[in-house]
Amino acid sequence: MRIIIVGIGAIGGTVAGALTRSGADVVAVARGRQLEAMRARGLTLRTPEETFTVDVPVVGHPGEIDFRPDDAILLTTKGQDTEGVLHDLRDAGVTDQPIFCLQNGVANEAKALRLFPNVHAVTVMMPALYLTPGEVAVHSLPKHGLFYLGRYPSGSDEADRAVAELLEAANIAVRVKEEPMAAKYGKLIMNLSNIIGAALGQGAGPQEIRDRVQAEAKAVLAAAGIAWEDVGMDHPDRKANMNFTRVPGIDNYGTSTMQSLERGTGSVETDWLNGEIAYLGRLHGVPVPVNAYLTGLGARMAREGLAAGTVPVEEMEAGISAQEA
Amino acid sequence: MRIIIVGIGAIGGTVAGALTRSGADVVAVARGRQLEAMRARGLTLRTPEETFTVDVPVVGHPGEIDFRPDDAILLTTKGQDTEGVLHDLRDAGVTDQPIFCLQNGVANEAKALRLFPNVHAVTVMMPALYLTPGEVAVHSLPKHGLFYLGRYPSGSDEADRAVAELLEAANIAVRVKEEPMAAKYGKLIMNLSNIIGAALGQGAGPQEIRDRVQAEAKAVLAAAGIAWEDVGMDHPDRKANMNFTRVPGIDNYGTSTMQSLERGTGSVETDWLNGEIAYLGRLHGVPVPVNAYLTGLGARMAREGLAAGTVPVEEMEAGISAQEA
Repeated sequence: MRIIIVGIGAIGGTVAGALTRSGADVVAVARGRQLEAMRARGLTLRTPEETFTVDVPVVGHPGEIDFRPDDAILLTTKGQDTEGVLHDLRDAGVTDQPIFCLQNGVANEAKALRLFPNVHAVTVMMPALYLTPGEVAVHSLPKHGLFYLGRYPSGSDEADRAVAELLEAANIAVRVKEEPMAAKYGKLIMNLSNIIGAALGQGAGPQEIRDRVQAEAKAVLAAAGIAWEDVGMDHPDRKANMNFTRVPGIDNYGTSTMQSLERGTGSVETDWLNGEIAYLGRLHGVPVPVNAYLTGLGARMAREGLAAGTVPVEEMEAGISAQEA
Repeated sequence: MRIIIVGIGAIGGTVAGALTRSGADVVAVARGRQLEAMRARGLTLRTPEETFTVDVPVVGHPGEIDFRPDDAILLTTKGQDTEGVLHDLRDAGVTDQPIFCLQNGVANEAKALRLFPNVHAVTVMMPALYLTPGEVAVHSLPKHGLFYLGRYPSGSDEADRAVAELLEAANIAVRVKEEPMAAKYGKLIMNLSNIIGAALGQGAGPQEIRDRVQAEAKAVLAAAGIAWEDVGMDHPDRKANMNFTRVPGIDNYGTSTMQSLERGTGSVETDWLNGEIAYLGRLHGVPVPVNAYLTGLGARMAREGLAAGTVPVEEMEAGISAQEA
């Protein structure tokens, strides 16, 4: 089995580096400076215990790949880029190869299933960082991370087990799940606070807002009849595999949303996190003022190029109150 | 109430022309040559009975509009352009103004509800044609068309009734519906044949394929528990309001998919028509070989710039058989 990894940011870079080092057959699809850096200097992965550089075959577009029946495709782009990538993959000749969505949010799998028959959901628990072009870090021990995966919308198959085996050999813990979306909804609940940290500064802001953003989500999922599985910090799988550990020389451990704002990518994934709860709340008649406000805030921060930590808490509280009116 | 119409193709042009002529306050958002032509020469609407030109205020981007609380926004773009337009509207300051999706397919409303709280579904039955920049035609009598509309996901409100009143005054028949998506699913079933006509030539090809594409859809909607309402040619509302009538000087009455291919827009809406059935079939375990094949065919025709009517029926039958294997 050959592994095609589309999107070499923090998660894609860590997975590509770890898989390549373990001897897997990997092709990466990267863009811009990341592509240039990987071609010139390979891909460097920094962990709490070591730093290593691997030479990962890399292309700039799926159209440069001659896809084979034994390929498995791992999507590691942000949710706002999924549709474009799926179209590129179809144009490049992908048909029924398994497509694994290693992405936050819960909307990527449905987008993939519209164009492709063989789609898999992956809950990614992996504290990875994009450092500079060609360089990523992952700050977890003893494993680089913990993935739950299975076929979308439910079940599991040989492709799940084959990919799990390769990831396990690359020091990533994997559980194959028959209902893989439940953990993704659980992860979604956790990711709802990303934008709060990005706006106010990591760890800043009243606990009340963090509690409300999650309470809205739990009420919405109950109303929608959507099952979710707690994948929080106290989960035994996490404790056994993922202990956040400092990487020598690195001090800044922001979330993916914060990293997007810091890199000035012009978009954040908030529409696919808090926006999912806003959407489901409106669909099912559950009030969602906090998530609705935060969805708009994420869009505004990206549009206006606001730096992480620059939104006053009073502004956030006033914005939420306005949504409640 | 001011009406903002985003996307001035066949449907948007007809609605903008008819509303403006009836005295409604309209602002159009158009692109490229359409924008240039409307600025230079106004918008010309040709019907079976007359040809008239109106001066419609037009801008090139939602960001040029100073949105007001009494605006209603009508989306008349193709489904593949919806997300971009929604982002533009949010960036332009739209908040809780009603957004009406006058679009084929059933996925636009959900996309809008993710970003905006006040979304309305409109089933558009209107045989309209894009002729040249600044010129559209509609070939129905006694009304230009027949719309079903209501609040998404269900219900109706004052905005529905206000928009209905304006449309009725513009010679478009309207029914306000409490479950507006049912008719949109019924229309979706009809639109599934668009790509067959576009590929083989309008009216060409074996009836068996047209029957199968609809039978798959009905099986899928039953499995998904989705209600649909027959809005076919024999519906009494259609017969009373919409009789297809030749417009003097016009001989070519293709579907929207055929028009997209002929204009070489590089994309067709098949992903949001046959692709919807392919998606729901995969989600609910119902075989959908015909719609899956046709979804890929539409993408390929747009990508390769194939003209309408150039796909041999044998190729289509072989492609469907391959999907069944």
